[in-house]
Amino acid sequence: MVYFKKMAVIGVGLIGGSLARVLREKKAVGEVVGIGRGEANLKRGVELGVLDSYTTDAKKGVEGADLVFIATPVCSIPQVVAEIAPHLSKGCIVTDGGSVKEYVVAACEPLMPEGTWFVGGHPIAGTEHSGVEASFSTLYQGRRCIVTPTGNTDPAALEKVVELWKVAGSNVPLMDPVQHDLVVAAISHLPHMVAYSLVNAVDGYDRFGGDLLSFSAGGFRDFTRIASSDPVMWRDIALTNKEAILEMMDFFSGYLEKLRGLVAAEDAEGLRTFFLNSKQKRDAIL
Amino acid sequence: MVYFKKMAVIGVGLIGGSLARVLREKKAVGEVVGIGRGEANLKRGVELGVLDSYTTDAKKGVEGADLVFIATPVCSIPQVVAEIAPHLSKGCIVTDGGSVKEYVVAACEPLMPEGTWFVGGHPIAGTEHSGVEASFSTLYQGRRCIVTPTGNTDPAALEKVVELWKVAGSNVPLMDPVQHDLVVAAISHLPHMVAYSLVNAVDGYDRFGGDLLSFSAGGFRDFTRIASSDPVMWRDIALTNKEAILEMMDFFSGYLEKLRGLVAAEDAEGLRTFFLNSKQKRDAIL
Repeated sequence: MVYFKKMAVIGVGLIGGSLARVLREKKAVGEVVGIGRGEANLKRGVELGVLDSYTTDAKKGVEGADLVFIATPVCSIPQVVAEIAPHLSKGCIVTDGGSVKEYVVAACEPLMPEGTWFVGGHPIAGTEHSGVEASFSTLYQGRRCIVTPTGNTDPAALEKVVELWKVAGSNVPLMDPVQHDLVVAAISHLPHMVAYSLVNAVDGYDRFGGDLLSFSAGGFRDFTRIASSDPVMWRDIALTNKEAILEMMDFFSGYLEKLRGLVAAEDAEGLRTFFLNSKQKRDAIL
Repeated sequence: MVYFKKMAVIGVGLIGGSLARVLREKKAVGEVVGIGRGEANLKRGVELGVLDSYTTDAKKGVEGADLVFIATPVCSIPQVVAEIAPHLSKGCIVTDGGSVKEYVVAACEPLMPEGTWFVGGHPIAGTEHSGVEASFSTLYQGRRCIVTPTGNTDPAALEKVVELWKVAGSNVPLMDPVQHDLVVAAISHLPHMVAYSLVNAVDGYDRFGGDLLSFSAGGFRDFTRIASSDPVMWRDIALTNKEAILEMMDFFSGYLEKLRGLVAAEDAEGLRTFFLNSKQKRDAIL
């Protein structure tokens, strides 16, 4: 089993905290140091047993680490790597949990000093809660973590990162960063754009001056849960996966337009077929 | 408390079965007869104690009833009323659980014989399951049931229908049928149109020839749960609430287009504000 002497987690929230928890539980790390800006959160991480120690100084925190896990919003990952790069020990592997991979991998790989390695990763897991309090060791159990090597990736470093996520309980498909970004644009980024737009639209529809949202039932609440996700995280995703998100939004709009046409034409059989196809596909992934 | 000697339930599924269950439990009905086409389902209703008896002949089933509850897909409600009208007893109240009210109320009111009453209703409750097996007596507890009187509605009949839903545990706002249809177009019909389109779009996006849906995580599954709803029920809703649904789809498309513009322009502050506004509105209805 893979083993790291010292792991540094930069951004100790749900994602970073949960990985630290499971690696400790499985004895795959010797020591975990937490790095972040919010001291109260980091202290809490030590109290909860997620971290052995913490620092707000990233340069100091990564000293001697053989694994660095960056779990900050996407746009800041390259900034973090630029800051820590000169302080990394030989052989150190840096990986991340960002939801966009081409932007991150292309920006980070060239920043790595000789003998250290960047490998991009994206655990497809999460809840609508955040912070180290929300972290738990089984978050990644049975989930997918997509790891995105490139032509520059060191095979031994790649193997260790794959092992790491397997220890956390995940299935670990490998994917090209560009392909990864298109896949998640479809199954994750598009639904978020749709949910955010839907809540804003219903809230903005004030034809009666009444509070429409107060009439919403369980279906609407489930459907819009992802519209409660962190605005800064999603701002960064929209900024860094722009082309794929625009492509998927346009693709989706085509289907919405098709359905609009069926409704306008009162096409009973077309409507039933459209709904049935969706139900069958949806039921197949239950 | 309101009391009915004999209740006929036409369409004994989740909605009809759950109302029968709670009214029996609260002793607000003397006898419940189930009416439907599927004999196996009706038999099961008797076995489960939801019904006292059943018949596949609606005319016979409504004889002597002082309450008829119609819980079939929207388009068939006026057909059912036309069939049973000549067989209703004096003083009988007919009400329904359809998701569209202007179409139903406008079609059914003129069909009612002298001395019998139609009052439209719409319990905003449900699960993705259907059939009498899925029914339970607390389905309506704490939920809203919108009742939609018109200028023709008998005040005493209206009062009894309102009481009926209060006995079931619901809050019972009164609303004009046209206003009702616009409200539910926003909070229920639009989300369904969006969810059905989303699943079809993601399923139809085969750029990699891979099975995109297999990568979907919890968020996508929650978000698309309503795309598993019954295609015939939703065909009928789309056919009978066409204008309001088209209006909401266009209104939503405007927001989606606005967000598309923010993504295309890489407008960081605009994106954060768009997402934050949605999150705040969403969190307020949690």
